[in-house]
Amino acid sequence: MEQAVVGYAGEKDAVLKRLRRVEGQVRGLQRMVEEDAYCIDVLTQVSAATKALQAVALSLLEDHLSHCVAHAAAEGGDVADAKIREASAAIARLVRS
Amino acid sequence: MEQAVVGYAGEKDAVLKRLRRVEGQVRGLQRMVEEDAYCIDVLTQVSAATKALQAVALSLLEDHLSHCVAHAAAEGGDVADAKIREASAAIARLVRS
Amino acid sequence: MEQAVVGYAGEKDAVLKRLRRVEGQVRGLQRMVEEDAYCIDVLTQVSAATKALQAVALSLLEDHLSHCVAHAAAEGGDVADAKIREASAAIARLVRS
Amino acid sequence: MEQAVVGYAGEKDAVLKRLRRVEGQVRGLQRMVEEDAYCIDVLTQVSAATKALQAVALSLLEDHLSHCVAHAAAEGGDVADAKIREASAAIARLVRS
Repeated sequence: MEQAVVGYAGEKDAVLKRLRRVEGQVRGLQRMVEEDAYCIDVLTQVSAATKALQAVALSLLEDHLSHCVAHAAAEGGDVADAKIREASAAIARLVRS
Repeated sequence: MEQAVVGYAGEKDAVLKRLRRVEGQVRGLQRMVEEDAYCIDVLTQVSAATKALQAVALSLLEDHLSHCVAHAAAEGGDVADAKIREASAAIARLVRS
Repeated sequence: MEQAVVGYAGEKDAVLKRLRRVEGQVRGLQRMVEEDAYCIDVLTQVSAATKALQAVALSLLEDHLSHCVAHAAAEGGDVADAKIREASAAIARLVRS
Repeated sequence: MEQAVVGYAGEKDAVLKRLRRVEGQVRGLQRMVEEDAYCIDVLTQVSAATKALQAVALSLLEDHLSHCVAHAAAEGGDVADAKIREASAAIARLVRS
């Protein structure tokens, strides 16, 4: 069943590994705050976690374009247009977040 | 000659109009600074100009996906892969700028 | 001992609560990926987690300006200058992340 | 008259020079679009102009913190609180733009 194959299927372990690392960063942030770490040091780690999340997003997006969008574009028609509008909206959310 | 048709061909006037508006915003910023406008008011206008530039980028990107990338994906093969990698790199630059 | 008082001291519980919620979002993302959720749905949640992290950063920064920086500025001199340069560098990292 | 001194007073020429360079970049973008430059090349230049605008904002913000906010903080009281809230709101607009 083709629908069930997600764009990141081939990268699932890598994506999960990255997300677990981000989870570790966010838990590290909680420890820093509990131990009254200096504000600027906490902010530096927040920036690092934010960048790590963006990297996850960019890799998911590339997988999505390479598979789902490329597939739909090859079929053409309304489905292709809808997929591209949907991807563009997701890119806009990323750029604005 | 198909190569010469850029993704934003159908939107050229709209893109130019948006860019001229951004130019107007940047000239307005120069006037504000010349007239010693309050820092925060200048910053608010810089944020507005930045958002306007991002909107231009997002519309160019959607046009690019709809035309150049969709076209290449329909052809498939190495050209399609290269186009998607190139678009992904442009998206990464946008997200990080 | 003045050094030990961090800018977010009065907001510590609120900051921890927000960070635990971000941790929950990142764990939710892992579940989505494990269950092969649709790429765009995963991306939407990554954007939400990124925004939540930025909101933590902005609140920490406001606390830092209100306490540590305001305190240093009231003292004046080199310490004040150093605190403002340090805060500006943290803001730049946030804007670019 | 103290009110008339803006935070970037000592940097006015440098700020104007940067803004004129951004104006040049935006005019260059118009030329690129008029000449049907390749979408990705246009996007690369939009990212560069966006980064240049952000750099203007970060330098204005540092000047503002060093002068207006530091001044108000030294005075203390409600004016100091209001200046810090105002600066924090401007930082939030920047981070989100």
